Amino acid sequence: MDKNGKLNFTMLCDFYELTMGNGYLAAGMEDRITYFDLFFRSVPDGGGFAIAAGLDQVIDYIRDLHFDPEDIAYLRGKNCFSEAFLDYLANFRFTGDIWAVPEGTPVFPREPLIVVRAPAIQAQLLETYMLCVVNHQSLIATKANRIVRSAKGRTVLEFGSRRAQSSSAAIVGARAAYIGGCAGTACAISDQLYGVPAGGTMAHAWVQMFDTELDAFRAYCRTYPDKSTLLVDTYDTLHSGVPNAIRAFDEILKPLGIKKCGIRLDSGDLAYLSKQARKMLDAAGWTECTITCSNALDEYLIRDLLDQGACIDCFGVGERLITAESDPVFGCVYKLAAVEDEKGHITPKIKISENTAKITNPHFKKLWRFYARDTGKAIADYMSLHDEQVDDSADLEIFDPDDTWKRKTVYDFKARELLVPIFQHGELVYEQPTLEEVKAYCAQQVDTLWPEVQRFENPHGYYVDLSQRLWDIKNDLLRR
Amino acid sequence: MDKNGKLNFTMLCDFYELTMGNGYLAAGMEDRITYFDLFFRSVPDGGGFAIAAGLDQVIDYIRDLHFDPEDIAYLRGKNCFSEAFLDYLANFRFTGDIWAVPEGTPVFPREPLIVVRAPAIQAQLLETYMLCVVNHQSLIATKANRIVRSAKGRTVLEFGSRRAQSSSAAIVGARAAYIGGCAGTACAISDQLYGVPAGGTMAHAWVQMFDTELDAFRAYCRTYPDKSTLLVDTYDTLHSGVPNAIRAFDEILKPLGIKKCGIRLDSGDLAYLSKQARKMLDAAGWTECTITCSNALDEYLIRDLLDQGACIDCFGVGERLITAESDPVFGCVYKLAAVEDEKGHITPKIKISENTAKITNPHFKKLWRFYARDTGKAIADYMSLHDEQVDDSADLEIFDPDDTWKRKTVYDFKARELLVPIFQHGELVYEQPTLEEVKAYCAQQVDTLWPEVQRFENPHGYYVDLSQRLWDIKNDLLRR
Repeated sequence: MDKNGKLNFTMLCDFYELTMGNGYLAAGMEDRITYFDLFFRSVPDGGGFAIAAGLDQVIDYIRDLHFDPEDIAYLRGKNCFSEAFLDYLANFRFTGDIWAVPEGTPVFPREPLIVVRAPAIQAQLLETYMLCVVNHQSLIATKANRIVRSAKGRTVLEFGSRRAQSSSAAIVGARAAYIGGCAGTACAISDQLYGVPAGGTMAHAWVQMFDTELDAFRAYCRTYPDKSTLLVDTYDTLHSGVPNAIRAFDEILKPLGIKKCGIRLDSGDLAYLSKQARKMLDAAGWTECTITCSNALDEYLIRDLLDQGACIDCFGVGERLITAESDPVFGCVYKLAAVEDEKGHITPKIKISENTAKITNPHFKKLWRFYARDTGKAIADYMSLHDEQVDDSADLEIFDPDDTWKRKTVYDFKARELLVPIFQHGELVYEQPTLEEVKAYCAQQVDTLWPEVQRFENPHGYYVDLSQRLWDIKNDLLRR
Repeated sequence: MDKNGKLNFTMLCDFYELTMGNGYLAAGMEDRITYFDLFFRSVPDGGGFAIAAGLDQVIDYIRDLHFDPEDIAYLRGKNCFSEAFLDYLANFRFTGDIWAVPEGTPVFPREPLIVVRAPAIQAQLLETYMLCVVNHQSLIATKANRIVRSAKGRTVLEFGSRRAQSSSAAIVGARAAYIGGCAGTACAISDQLYGVPAGGTMAHAWVQMFDTELDAFRAYCRTYPDKSTLLVDTYDTLHSGVPNAIRAFDEILKPLGIKKCGIRLDSGDLAYLSKQARKMLDAAGWTECTITCSNALDEYLIRDLLDQGACIDCFGVGERLITAESDPVFGCVYKLAAVEDEKGHITPKIKISENTAKITNPHFKKLWRFYARDTGKAIADYMSLHDEQVDDSADLEIFDPDDTWKRKTVYDFKARELLVPIFQHGELVYEQPTLEEVKAYCAQQVDTLWPEVQRFENPHGYYVDLSQRLWDIKNDLLRR
């Protein structure tokens, strides 16, 4: 923390990054250029794809990387670092290169989302914070995208701040949910900081504060005649809440000629109650009154509610979105892929595991996505070595890296490189899109995926193949 | 955010807290004194109790409550607030009273963990941030306490920053895990900010950076001879990792007379591998070498590993602790319990629900814990009205608030008030214990619970009863 009370996230590292850094310096390896890949191994909830998010915060972090005198003093007090290393840290700045998949991109297991090329100490130091931020925001963006797709065009709002796993989980969680497709949030500071539209009306306490429910509704309509959404379930939804809402609308909004208003249901059976409420509102002439529902919603319950004909215009989704409750871990890891010697020669590195899924893809790589020129749909992703090109004017045979007899020729396709330069020699070279652009890009890219890949359960496995050269190198390393 | 880049958490509120505040001002209700209870409804993972945590951050928040000019400008731009309300916010400070259960206390469903008495706008504004912080930290402290109890006295370290749901979830999550009983964390900034002891040694990348595993181990032992914990699973644990670790210990530590060292296993079958590694280390004379294990651990797996005789001295627990993966939502809510008129007369308020568990306990209350004088064990908790006293020199008949025929007489007991004053008239009156004190208090208080209440599955339901007067008031309100 600096003297103004601003946290220095450089210190949000696992302690081993510092002990290793000190060790690299002691071993004379501080300038050894390393390549690290940040990637994940499986999609939460058994989904067909994830949404990459968090790059914006990674960029802020890299730009601010530094150790304050307070940090050096703390580290010195741990009695395990050399003065040479503490000097190194006092003068630390990031000088490496970073490539990343843009935020909002649908991504698949084992694809590098971020590639770091930097001296060993620097590259290692980034591990924890980058993983934390990318894991969290990708988790929430992915979950939000599932929930938004389940709502089939209806509005989904993020309501979960109070159940978020800490303050920043609420603040940037709302941002990630917006990227994934939510229309807004309840969280005021996420609007202020990131422009995620925030809104909200009343809690049960508002209703309880007045002598009667009707008085509470009247007072609200008087204060917010053009934004009256009334919470109707404090006492009895159908026998008290909805009739009182209609009465307040009739008394206060009707004379003003206002037709737009809303009610919110936060408990009970939302399918039954929303259908009954819709009938009562329509019968009273309030056909433009929207019905918002909240209460432990997620993609499965929303799908079921709509399947049962629930009359819901807007879903407020809380804890099950902001914590990704059904599968709350996004498992990105950060693994060494190669080292480079002084002459620029790159040696690929691999991590072996008895668990095949944990074996890494070695080397400095490129990631490509192939789109069909006719449909615009995504056909396959393709990892190649850094110095390979894909010629999309010709046909290309690709193959499954595990079952190599599964082969497929892609033709009439457009190849797009997914990893774009973010930092070069420590300087930001990426023009950051606005949050609105990221959100629109995400929706557009999800549309390039076949419905089979978008299915919630047992989705079709999207192809992520390796180039022949990369596959050969990986197999050579495995055989040794 | 202020001009120094420090976030103002006052703005971490649900937008409805502001729309309601504006509405209370418009309705002339801004000075109406309200009482709110913060409480939860069920223990995560089906456990018998939870650990209260997060009060320290709540105190920081309350002390810093204010709206910066930037905040007022943002709110004005939303075009839904009166200038009178914006003036009110510009001069906002908290003037109310807060009582809370100390951090580290075992707590039970429906008990008020925090009671707020404040003018309506103020009390309402606190809702989201207090819930967010208390929910998150209580969730992690509770989960950590389960995991630590499963380890039966062995060391448990918090290793989850990279999988935490955002930066602050990592930072204060490590703090909460420490309260719950973890011995330390991997997260450097949690040590720096809160004094949670941080440590760490090496990642797989360290091993991969050297030409051979043995070289990597030698280099580490040379740099950290008195703190050598070597990660032995990069290539092949039993055929390469452990033999190379022994060789490095023999070559470098033995000549120095050092006997304390360690290995870490991060994959494979931890029961089998730890037993084999123990045999190999002992046979080589490294009987003081500790074995640390990590990889998707939680209380269930640790219990099973120990049941199978795994030779593990220390557990590094990551994602399943820092996200409370098996049940990642702590469901505290914040509900109006009473309002007070100008004459000081308190009117209790209740929220009805078709779901009995969602009905609130009305009124301004006290919370008591009864301990048996002979065993020191906790017998029951007891909620009374604010003006009731418990005379623990006499016997007391208590009863189940749902099944009122279940009656029990407590005798020879000591009554302790759990809610203590934190703020009075907006001033902090609570002497905050150190984190070490909170951790020790937590362990001591968990010891007052019978093993039946501590059981992981199907624990005995601890008594949380209401005084006769409180029960009568609640039932009167329900009947109306």
